[in-house]
Amino acid sequence: MKVGGKNFRTIWINEKDDAVISIIDQRFLPHQFIIEDLHSVAEMVQAIREMHVRGAGLIGAAAGYGMYLAAIEASKTESFNDHLLHSARLLKSARPTAVNPENAIKKQIAAIATGNSMSERIKIAKMTAIMIADEDAEHCRKIGLHGVSIIEQLSKKKSGEQVNILTHCNAGWLAFVDCGSATAPIYEALQRGINIHVWVDETRPRNQGAGLTAWEFINHGVPHTVITDNAGGHLMQHGFVDIVITGADRVTRRGDAANKIGTYLKALAAHDNQIPFYVALPSSTFDWRVNDGLHEIKIEERSPDEVKYVEGWNGKEISKVLITPSESPAANYAFDVTPSRLITGLICERGICKASEDEILKLFPEKREDETAISANHHMEL
Amino acid sequence: MKVGGKNFRTIWINEKDDAVISIIDQRFLPHQFIIEDLHSVAEMVQAIREMHVRGAGLIGAAAGYGMYLAAIEASKTESFNDHLLHSARLLKSARPTAVNPENAIKKQIAAIATGNSMSERIKIAKMTAIMIADEDAEHCRKIGLHGVSIIEQLSKKKSGEQVNILTHCNAGWLAFVDCGSATAPIYEALQRGINIHVWVDETRPRNQGAGLTAWEFINHGVPHTVITDNAGGHLMQHGFVDIVITGADRVTRRGDAANKIGTYLKALAAHDNQIPFYVALPSSTFDWRVNDGLHEIKIEERSPDEVKYVEGWNGKEISKVLITPSESPAANYAFDVTPSRLITGLICERGICKASEDEILKLFPEKREDETAISANHHMEL
Repeated sequence: MKVGGKNFRTIWINEKDDAVISIIDQRFLPHQFIIEDLHSVAEMVQAIREMHVRGAGLIGAAAGYGMYLAAIEASKTESFNDHLLHSARLLKSARPTAVNPENAIKKQIAAIATGNSMSERIKIAKMTAIMIADEDAEHCRKIGLHGVSIIEQLSKKKSGEQVNILTHCNAGWLAFVDCGSATAPIYEALQRGINIHVWVDETRPRNQGAGLTAWEFINHGVPHTVITDNAGGHLMQHGFVDIVITGADRVTRRGDAANKIGTYLKALAAHDNQIPFYVALPSSTFDWRVNDGLHEIKIEERSPDEVKYVEGWNGKEISKVLITPSESPAANYAFDVTPSRLITGLICERGICKASEDEILKLFPEKREDETAISANHHMEL
Repeated sequence: MKVGGKNFRTIWINEKDDAVISIIDQRFLPHQFIIEDLHSVAEMVQAIREMHVRGAGLIGAAAGYGMYLAAIEASKTESFNDHLLHSARLLKSARPTAVNPENAIKKQIAAIATGNSMSERIKIAKMTAIMIADEDAEHCRKIGLHGVSIIEQLSKKKSGEQVNILTHCNAGWLAFVDCGSATAPIYEALQRGINIHVWVDETRPRNQGAGLTAWEFINHGVPHTVITDNAGGHLMQHGFVDIVITGADRVTRRGDAANKIGTYLKALAAHDNQIPFYVALPSSTFDWRVNDGLHEIKIEERSPDEVKYVEGWNGKEISKVLITPSESPAANYAFDVTPSRLITGLICERGICKASEDEILKLFPEKREDETAISANHHMEL
C-alpha cells in the first residue's frame, strides 16, 4: 500500500543484504515513519514482543522471516536442529494469542527439514518466508474482493448514500503484509467508487485504531472519523452504523473470534441493533484444534503501564503521560473472545460463510478429515 | 469525604467571603489538588462548561450556587428579574445533558420570587443553594444505605469472598457534593468491612474513571484496579464481575438512563452474562417529562480534540499528547442511553426499584399525578 505515494509492504528482505529483514517500526506511527532493520532472531523476537510489528498476519510473516534468520544462525552452530527449534520456541512465545506465528513456524520447520545441505536449508527457509508473506498478501486481496460485495449491497440498499462502516483496532495493511483483512473490503470499495465512511475505534490501551488505522486512511484518502471505544454503541443505536467489520487474532473451528479487547462489546451492540457484524480473516488465522474460544483460548495480559500511561505526540516528540494516580493498580487484558452467535459472517480468502463449524468447513473441506490429526498436533511442542 | 485526611465537599461558600463560591478544580486531578474561587455567574458558567466541576449532582449544586451569585449580581441592576432569568439561561445551557442544573435553577427561581426585598432575595438564594447542596449530599448518603444491601447479599452468597464491582466514569463524591451515587454503596460497604474490589473503567475521552474515581479510591483505601473501557466485557465473560453500578446524568420516567458514553456497552455485556446492572441516582436526576430516553434526550457533542489529545502528567506538569494523525477528524459524543430493559434496578434515596414507570412511581407516588403539570412545564423557557 502507499506511504507518501510510494508502495510499501510491512515487512521485506533488505534490498542490500538478504540476511537482514526490514520492517516499518509501527511504534512511531502515526507521528514518524521509521524503517527498522533486523539482523537476528533475538531482534525479531523483540520486534514482535514489543510490537514494532503487530497484527496476526504480520507477526505470522515476521515469524516466517524469523525462522529464515534462525536457519542462517543455526547453520553456524554444531546442532542445527536444536538451535532451529530453540529459535522457533522463542518466536512462538513472543506473543501468545495469534495462531499465525505458530502456523508459519510449523510450515518453516517442515520445509527446512527437506533441505539436504545447510545452504539448501537456508535457501528453502528464505523462499518459504517469502511464500508465507506473499500468501498473506494474496489472501488479504481476495478477502477484499469477497467482502466488497457486502458493502456494494448495502450501498445499493441505501441508493448510493454513504455506507458507514465501524472497525475496531487495526486490521489494516499494517497488521498484515499488505491490504489488511478488515480494511481490504474498504480499500476495494474505495477503488470502486462506493460512497463509504469509516468509524475508527481508537482502541485503547495502545490506540492502534487512532494511530494506525487512521494513518492508513489518511494515506489512502478513506473518509473516516476517529471515535472513542465507548462511542460505537451510541452510534449504532442511532442508525449511524451500517456494518461492523473487524479482524481476528484467532478464530476457532466453530467460529468464535479472539480479537482486540473490546471487540465483544461492539458485537453485542451490533446484535442489539440488528447491524451485520463481520470478521475478516485469512485462513491462517483459524485454529482448527479449538472449538470453544471463550474457555480454550489463552488471553494475553500485558503491562499495566499501557493502561496507566498514554503515548502520543507532544508537539516535539513521542512522549507518555500518566492518566491515573501513580499508586493505582491497572489490569491489561489484550484480547477478548466474541462468541460465534454474535457474528453474522466470516470473510475469508475463499469466500464468505456463517460463523459455524458446518459452514466454515464447507469453505475449508480439507479440514473436515483433519480433525484427529490436528488434535494430535495440538500437543506437539514447538 | 477525605482528601489527605481533611474533610471536603466538592463545592462550598468561601469561608472568608460569602459572595464567593469555592470548588475543587477537577481538571487537575488526580495529579494536583487545586481549589478555585468563583466570583461571578460568568465564572461559574465557565467552570461548568469547561468541567472544573462535573457530574450530574455537582453541576446541579453549582447551578444552585450560580443562581445565588446571579441574585447578588441582579440586585445591582435595574431589572432584577431580567438579569436573573438571563443568568439562569446561561447556567442551564453550560452543559445540556444532565437535568439537575435545570431542576436547581427552577427551585431557585421559585424561591427567590418569594423574597420581598433585594436583601431577602439574596438571603433566600443563599439558603436555597445550601439546601440544594445539602439535599444532594443527604440523598447520596441514603443511596449508600440502600445500595449496600445488594453488595451485602452478594458477599453472603460468595461466603465472604471478594465482591467485584465494575463502575464506569466517575459517579463518585467528586460528581456530587459528597459521597457520590454509584460510589455511595461502595464506601458504605468498605465502612462495614465487606470484602470488595472495584474495576474502574478509565472512561475515555476524559478519563474520569482513571483520574477521578481512582483518586477517590486511593484517598479512601478502596481496593481497585483501573481498566480500559474495552476490558469490562471480557471480565464479565470470565466471572470476574459480580455487579455493575453506574451513575446517571438523566433518567426518564420509564427508567432509561443517559450516562457517560460507553455505559450502554457495559449494560449489554452485563445482560449477556446475567450480571446485575444497577444505576444509582438521587431523584434530582429523574426527568419526569421524558419517557423514551433514546429518542428524547439530546446527547451533548463535545470538542473532537478531547478524543484526539489525551491529557495527563508528563512527570513535570499536566500536558497533552496527540494520539491520531493531526489531519484525522474525530467525533465526541459525551453520553449514551441505556434502555431500561438492560437495567436490573435503580438505587435512589428512597430505596431500590425496578427500571419501569410503575415501579419508579411506587417510590415517587407524588410524580404520578404530576404528569400533566410537568408536561406543561416542559415548554417553560428558562
